[in-house]
Amino acid sequence: MSKVITFAQHGGPEVFEYTEIGTPEPGVNEVRIRVKAIGLNRAESMWRRGEYVEPAKLPARVGYEASGVVDAVGANVTHVAVGDNVSTVPSFSMNDYGVYGELVLAPAHAVVKSPAWLSHEDAVAIWNVFVTPYAAFTENGRVKAGDVVLIPAASSGVGIGAIQVAKRLGATAVALTRTREKRDALVALGADHVIVTDEEDLVEAVQRITEGRGADLVFDPVGGKTFARLIDATRPGGTILLYGALSPDDTVLPVLPLLYKRITVHGYNLFSTTTDAQRQADAAAFIFDGLQSGVLKTVIARRFAFDQIAQAHAVLERNEHFGRIVVSV
Amino acid sequence: MSKVITFAQHGGPEVFEYTEIGTPEPGVNEVRIRVKAIGLNRAESMWRRGEYVEPAKLPARVGYEASGVVDAVGANVTHVAVGDNVSTVPSFSMNDYGVYGELVLAPAHAVVKSPAWLSHEDAVAIWNVFVTPYAAFTENGRVKAGDVVLIPAASSGVGIGAIQVAKRLGATAVALTRTREKRDALVALGADHVIVTDEEDLVEAVQRITEGRGADLVFDPVGGKTFARLIDATRPGGTILLYGALSPDDTVLPVLPLLYKRITVHGYNLFSTTTDAQRQADAAAFIFDGLQSGVLKTVIARRFAFDQIAQAHAVLERNEHFGRIVVSV
Repeated sequence: MSKVITFAQHGGPEVFEYTEIGTPEPGVNEVRIRVKAIGLNRAESMWRRGEYVEPAKLPARVGYEASGVVDAVGANVTHVAVGDNVSTVPSFSMNDYGVYGELVLAPAHAVVKSPAWLSHEDAVAIWNVFVTPYAAFTENGRVKAGDVVLIPAASSGVGIGAIQVAKRLGATAVALTRTREKRDALVALGADHVIVTDEEDLVEAVQRITEGRGADLVFDPVGGKTFARLIDATRPGGTILLYGALSPDDTVLPVLPLLYKRITVHGYNLFSTTTDAQRQADAAAFIFDGLQSGVLKTVIARRFAFDQIAQAHAVLERNEHFGRIVVSV
Repeated sequence: MSKVITFAQHGGPEVFEYTEIGTPEPGVNEVRIRVKAIGLNRAESMWRRGEYVEPAKLPARVGYEASGVVDAVGANVTHVAVGDNVSTVPSFSMNDYGVYGELVLAPAHAVVKSPAWLSHEDAVAIWNVFVTPYAAFTENGRVKAGDVVLIPAASSGVGIGAIQVAKRLGATAVALTRTREKRDALVALGADHVIVTDEEDLVEAVQRITEGRGADLVFDPVGGKTFARLIDATRPGGTILLYGALSPDDTVLPVLPLLYKRITVHGYNLFSTTTDAQRQADAAAFIFDGLQSGVLKTVIARRFAFDQIAQAHAVLERNEHFGRIVVSV
């Protein structure tokens, strides 16, 4: 028997239900996992609200990242075996699989064997967090040593990953955060500069840090009203990687500055890397090496029990946490 | 003595004045040209209105593209000589030089010697028109044979150039035009498909043309309300080159489709090519070869006399012409 988390209508955290589904049988290229920990992503909150890029078919399952023990494997699955510790990489549609549950199926391509030293809790705090910036920064050799990288929403899960990945690649990491509260934590993670946007003018601060040159790259999950300011803070020929839509406001493109400065805006998501076997393996190697050597660190903000999923999502949406929200199963 | 066109305040075409300036002496790296023809660009209309990317210092000169005969050269100028037919490439600030005039100075890097067979009229119908798409399409090998290229505002000067350059590179050129009126002319220029956007659904038409795949590249000078539709018509991983801001409306970025489809928006202008000696020479060779072999054709829409600059700009802004507006001097 397995309880899984579902929702029959879109809405706030209260729409989550616990549904008994029996023991799911893995088909060809599927793995059944006895889940030990779940890592929450903002994508799942948008999915629940009906605001995700892909519409959910109701009633819906949910969840991209879980860690656990392989409980059974379907035909063709050879890279993991029963008893292995594994975690799931976001690389599938939540209309097909959702890993919020006790016993869940996942497609084989999304299942990665964990190194012996990696805890279940840490294993759900690495994929979206580190693969998103890793793939974005390394694709086409985009970030070079010495580049100045702006990281809005720096205390979000991916922001925390981005600071560390940027530093690992030899870049200068400039963390943007609204209030003074998380400044010390961002510095402790390796941010070279922290701009508190409620207190400082963003563009002036970037000009000062870059000696008037502007930022080379911006890694933005927000959009909305600050987007034009990010363009102002970017050097001619610079790049904005837009990987989220956290702002509820329209993102108006400042066309003339954009074309005058020949700035590039890339819409970005991690699926281009996670659904490609070689790139996924490269990203996993980068992350596991970094974690083992201590260059990359997971940050766990809060822990919840499996029956507290509504509370956990409420905290996720309050956006006051620093690091990963983990649910133990 | 030389009359040049100036304006002392921003506004409509009526703000233009004819000012006597004597005979300007070329300084180091400057060329004096006795102007025979001027080609009008929309940038000059925005400049006059005070809506250009660069603010004009008033009273201002104006004009990027003129053709004429070298009348004098300053120190260090060796690539052209008195008596040569030359034209000017947009590659300078109009706060420094403006070529609307009888005798004008231009910076040496902007002065290109014309082949013997090129008329003055044709020589002012090639730079912005062909360099803009040439540089945009060839930079980083962006357009490949077989690519489908969408060309909004296809009957604008650069649109007309873009159709021909796209065809020359082996791409499928899809011209977008608001009304049926210019359809035949666009087909005659080589457009493989013409979408009349007042009559057809843009996205459906592109889906039909590309068998559901979407366009590889969009070369858009408009922005505004149709921008989101262009994103819908672009394939996953496709590119939008935004090189103008013809629409008076906000250009709202559809963030979720952009990042879901991993679309790239490049702000683009031709200065990256025209201010680089090697790239400018490559572009000139491409254009002169194309014109001589008949693969590229200039299109002259209307001719005006030098004392009709206000009428000429009024026609430019009415946006009903097809091809280049040329002023004879």
